[in-house]
Amino acid sequence: MNPPSLRVGIVGATGYTGVELLRLLAGHPHAQVTAVTSRSEAGVHIADYFPSLRGVYDLVFQAPDAADLAACDVVFFATPHGVAMRDAPALMAQGVRVVDLSADYRLKDIPTWEHWYGMPFTAEKALQEAVYGLCELNRDAIRTARLVANPGCYPTCVSLPLIPLLKAGVVKTGRPLIADCKSGVSGAGRKAAVGTLLCEAGDNFKAYGVGGHRHLPEIRQTIAGLQAEVAEHLVFVPHLTPMIRGMHATTYVHLEDGADPQALLAAYYADSPFVDVMPAGSTPETRSVRGSNVCRISVQRAPGSEIWILLSVQDNLVKGAAGQAVQNMNIMFGFDECSGLNNVALLP
Amino acid sequence: MNPPSLRVGIVGATGYTGVELLRLLAGHPHAQVTAVTSRSEAGVHIADYFPSLRGVYDLVFQAPDAADLAACDVVFFATPHGVAMRDAPALMAQGVRVVDLSADYRLKDIPTWEHWYGMPFTAEKALQEAVYGLCELNRDAIRTARLVANPGCYPTCVSLPLIPLLKAGVVKTGRPLIADCKSGVSGAGRKAAVGTLLCEAGDNFKAYGVGGHRHLPEIRQTIAGLQAEVAEHLVFVPHLTPMIRGMHATTYVHLEDGADPQALLAAYYADSPFVDVMPAGSTPETRSVRGSNVCRISVQRAPGSEIWILLSVQDNLVKGAAGQAVQNMNIMFGFDECSGLNNVALLP
Amino acid sequence: MNPPSLRVGIVGATGYTGVELLRLLAGHPHAQVTAVTSRSEAGVHIADYFPSLRGVYDLVFQAPDAADLAACDVVFFATPHGVAMRDAPALMAQGVRVVDLSADYRLKDIPTWEHWYGMPFTAEKALQEAVYGLCELNRDAIRTARLVANPGCYPTCVSLPLIPLLKAGVVKTGRPLIADCKSGVSGAGRKAAVGTLLCEAGDNFKAYGVGGHRHLPEIRQTIAGLQAEVAEHLVFVPHLTPMIRGMHATTYVHLEDGADPQALLAAYYADSPFVDVMPAGSTPETRSVRGSNVCRISVQRAPGSEIWILLSVQDNLVKGAAGQAVQNMNIMFGFDECSGLNNVALLP
Amino acid sequence: MNPPSLRVGIVGATGYTGVELLRLLAGHPHAQVTAVTSRSEAGVHIADYFPSLRGVYDLVFQAPDAADLAACDVVFFATPHGVAMRDAPALMAQGVRVVDLSADYRLKDIPTWEHWYGMPFTAEKALQEAVYGLCELNRDAIRTARLVANPGCYPTCVSLPLIPLLKAGVVKTGRPLIADCKSGVSGAGRKAAVGTLLCEAGDNFKAYGVGGHRHLPEIRQTIAGLQAEVAEHLVFVPHLTPMIRGMHATTYVHLEDGADPQALLAAYYADSPFVDVMPAGSTPETRSVRGSNVCRISVQRAPGSEIWILLSVQDNLVKGAAGQAVQNMNIMFGFDECSGLNNVALLP
Repeated sequence: MNPPSLRVGIVGATGYTGVELLRLLAGHPHAQVTAVTSRSEAGVHIADYFPSLRGVYDLVFQAPDAADLAACDVVFFATPHGVAMRDAPALMAQGVRVVDLSADYRLKDIPTWEHWYGMPFTAEKALQEAVYGLCELNRDAIRTARLVANPGCYPTCVSLPLIPLLKAGVVKTGRPLIADCKSGVSGAGRKAAVGTLLCEAGDNFKAYGVGGHRHLPEIRQTIAGLQAEVAEHLVFVPHLTPMIRGMHATTYVHLEDGADPQALLAAYYADSPFVDVMPAGSTPETRSVRGSNVCRISVQRAPGSEIWILLSVQDNLVKGAAGQAVQNMNIMFGFDECSGLNNVALLP
Repeated sequence: MNPPSLRVGIVGATGYTGVELLRLLAGHPHAQVTAVTSRSEAGVHIADYFPSLRGVYDLVFQAPDAADLAACDVVFFATPHGVAMRDAPALMAQGVRVVDLSADYRLKDIPTWEHWYGMPFTAEKALQEAVYGLCELNRDAIRTARLVANPGCYPTCVSLPLIPLLKAGVVKTGRPLIADCKSGVSGAGRKAAVGTLLCEAGDNFKAYGVGGHRHLPEIRQTIAGLQAEVAEHLVFVPHLTPMIRGMHATTYVHLEDGADPQALLAAYYADSPFVDVMPAGSTPETRSVRGSNVCRISVQRAPGSEIWILLSVQDNLVKGAAGQAVQNMNIMFGFDECSGLNNVALLP
Repeated sequence: MNPPSLRVGIVGATGYTGVELLRLLAGHPHAQVTAVTSRSEAGVHIADYFPSLRGVYDLVFQAPDAADLAACDVVFFATPHGVAMRDAPALMAQGVRVVDLSADYRLKDIPTWEHWYGMPFTAEKALQEAVYGLCELNRDAIRTARLVANPGCYPTCVSLPLIPLLKAGVVKTGRPLIADCKSGVSGAGRKAAVGTLLCEAGDNFKAYGVGGHRHLPEIRQTIAGLQAEVAEHLVFVPHLTPMIRGMHATTYVHLEDGADPQALLAAYYADSPFVDVMPAGSTPETRSVRGSNVCRISVQRAPGSEIWILLSVQDNLVKGAAGQAVQNMNIMFGFDECSGLNNVALLP
Repeated sequence: MNPPSLRVGIVGATGYTGVELLRLLAGHPHAQVTAVTSRSEAGVHIADYFPSLRGVYDLVFQAPDAADLAACDVVFFATPHGVAMRDAPALMAQGVRVVDLSADYRLKDIPTWEHWYGMPFTAEKALQEAVYGLCELNRDAIRTARLVANPGCYPTCVSLPLIPLLKAGVVKTGRPLIADCKSGVSGAGRKAAVGTLLCEAGDNFKAYGVGGHRHLPEIRQTIAGLQAEVAEHLVFVPHLTPMIRGMHATTYVHLEDGADPQALLAAYYADSPFVDVMPAGSTPETRSVRGSNVCRISVQRAPGSEIWILLSVQDNLVKGAAGQAVQNMNIMFGFDECSGLNNVALLP
């Protein structure tokens, strides 16, 4: 017999992570979306807003106050930062478990959070119990979490290949660790802006946030939790690449002599359905995970160098956002970790 | 209890329709791919060839002769024209049912086929029993068919909005019927060619095949089967648009005074899960069906004109090819028509 | 000896037509941009705003009131509608000649303009002397014009192949004339908007404005000036195609028996440097004119039909906007029509 | 008075560097293309092959043997490797100066060349006098060169920001130097291949050649010529990005304490018209140089790190190939270095 169906709410469902949650949850065997909120689109049928959902859902956006989110078993926040900080604690007090796709509960150090996000942090108690939802790192803690901070897209893509190496203690300290990352444009969200117009971001490539990006402290925190001296030497440069979905991290790392990163990665992820360690010498492509929750990783040594190169790809909206959020939900509620996440990547 | 799982073979599985069949069938509840053939890639694991399938299938391409296709319940031909004409009859004689995604069995008039495809036609007997697999037109005949000719992409996209109007007899005769069609580049297939390089087809738009395209006689045949005098006035111009998937038909048609095409379309497709008749005034977008088996249609009158404009979109690789092929299989074997085809379009 | 250099002003130079004017005029042998205005960017160096112009210009955006536009010989308006209607007459009174790239002076019928542009028209006197700047149609009148209404992108692309046929009187009356047009996204301008984000307009194709588009009355006016009964049967459907620049018109037209459109086009454009009539059977590609002022045209008969198909391509920002504006300036001031417009299309 | 016009030949003009040479030379005030060769397209008019050149040239491809290349003042080789090695010496013996856009004369160490290009090297004497045509490094030697080896695209983009730092001796030795590079697809050339189809390379990002790329020894050679100990620590990873033109290098470098790379770059390139050192904190975009011969550079320190980040962009077909070749020609023949290269980047 199937477990009874979860009641799911989505706060702020008009963005790309919102519609992606709706896409994935439509095929989930044990969950049912019962409330979607949007301040600006209250009263609009979600199929009128997202024509891809015509015939899939019969739901209307509700104003956040009007929605009966307290009746949900789990609520996803797909909102700008600040909203979940303000609204999640009350829901949790009513017994609702929360997966926050925003950055509100990702950083444990409050001054750091306030520095990067530019507002006072007001939910200290919730933060204390929040679990950082990088599934392959914190699976056990996630099972019982009431509040999961779903990781950022860059932190997921950069951290996954590093975790097994850091856990094994083979990353050399005192040496730079360079993560050169490339993201599709959907990472910038679905908001009217000149910089992400097709005519501005199309047929173009550029770095951005070189002087500082909010995901830098998040990646540092994950690294520091495993091998503190490595974190301070992290260099992180994100780039915008002219595609809709997809993220690629090229990470340059010094390893101790004799380290076997291929073996370490393969062993660590042997039982993780969504991390695919490719054979040595492979080059993962972002399109091989388009629309799927998989992160593919390969590792090889730079020719004639002591540097190792980690290549990792994911769909920034799936494993980098909504897919990992569903994966977190699956872990929290004891479902098969792959429930609702079995769709094959769309290639071509 | 579930029906027993079908054994499925795919002949010529290295192209885009092949990998799309594999993607869709991976999630099919009642079917299991047991054989994939490729002359050029025999011995290669399909996951090495299509990295998107890593972890999804454990299958190796076999040479066509080596594969035990006769043990299959159904075989899909995803091959260039000529192959299914040659090989399908023998399989059928062994009790295998066939869905041919190539053009071999689409045209009932042999001289016409030979004119457009440039080779002698040699499978007359099979052709006689072949059913043209436009599901929404021939659903009943498909149920019992041993051989289904899966329609071309353009013919599907152009025919679906026309069928209800032709059936109702409201298309004016003696007037031109113009189908101005636009296709993503995947329609050209996965073969090394200069014309479909990213640097040639990207950031570019052009017509092609203006002087004659193989899908013209196919569309004409469908129209002629419903209202013969209309077919001869068909004008069909395909264009190549710089995107991977997606097809859009803009069809200009003269209707009898008083005709209500919106009502006719809505009524005809009321029970068809994969044809979505949008509200009057809508403009369907190709991305709203990216990766899904849906064809969305809208109709409106040209301002100040006696002409009606039919807009229809589909994913050329799904409803225009592999998805409709699976839909045909579902109908042939009595499954729910939507089995394996419930995935939501990937947007963005 | 070279003619003395013109002093050129550009009002509203922060959009795509503005930066395109700046690109083209940078290489003009007889013109020098001396003033660029922008209300929002006043005080900003244009090279900080458009990095492509670094090292090319040393100019700062000025507020419209602060700029000495009256000292210019010619002023281009690259503004939303309403601005040139308000400001051009005063400049003209000071002896400045004006090329208006907006729609303000394109329609001779004021109620029609007010209907489509939604504001009262207030510059009747200027409108009376305004010349519609479709160079290949009105070259003589442009020479002496004080005010040129630069045509819209769609009207240019649709009208150029039709003009010789209409002038020759070979277009059948009482039959529909269908212009199915496809535009790159830059036609929508450089403004923050969700609909033209890379993640919305990329990898997508759709019609828009099916129920009515502002360029419909403009095309009708041009046709009506040549063969009045044809204009009323015009059907015009624009589509958005996922590329930055480029426009393609596919126009379906009935011609009198025995008409030779290839010969008519070739003869009419024999001396027009920017209209290229291709050999019969050609299919022009938008990329063949990317960045250039050329419109390429081909014509052929639909197979087995009385319909003729006109294919025309242009760069919507060049021949469809800024390039034609410079061409107009060249004609107005007696320069070689090609001055500043000799650059070859960027392919690939 | 203008200098007399050079007679220019292009060997192998059917590829992207060939058509780009033709585009740039069409506007050159002192050069005239008099011969274009192609083995496969002999007899075809170049405007039939490249429609963008209709009306620009009246030239027909000739078989290499049939063309009177010896009558040229300068010949460009836009050929696969091996051709210029075989054919350039004979032309030079007849007084023709040569710019080789292939890799034949780039590497001074013959065993290294033979290792990476997989054929015996047979033109030692020519190699001895060949000048590596990185204009901003070897301008003086280029003036009198009979044979210029035009640099590879990656080597140009990576070397330009490094040269001033290496010349000043501020790059730390014994530390890794990491060049993470991203190229548009046109770098792969205009040949039928599956990997660069729009449906394979579009909407996709991947690394390639991680285990070794032919441009690695070329970059190493340039670095070694300036600061030998640095070269061996070079790590170079190229990536394919879904755009037609454009290249971006992100180079991570350790500098001596107190080094001021911004000042060093600005001083070194003060008189170089095609290298634009942007203000500190800038992020150059590839589109800002689309179609132009400019390389834009910026430099900044990684936040909280001893690493400096060099960002450099160019159009891989212009400064990375044909544009630099024309620049070399200009230097060789004493023309203004910018002749034929003044066109402004195409943005958007």
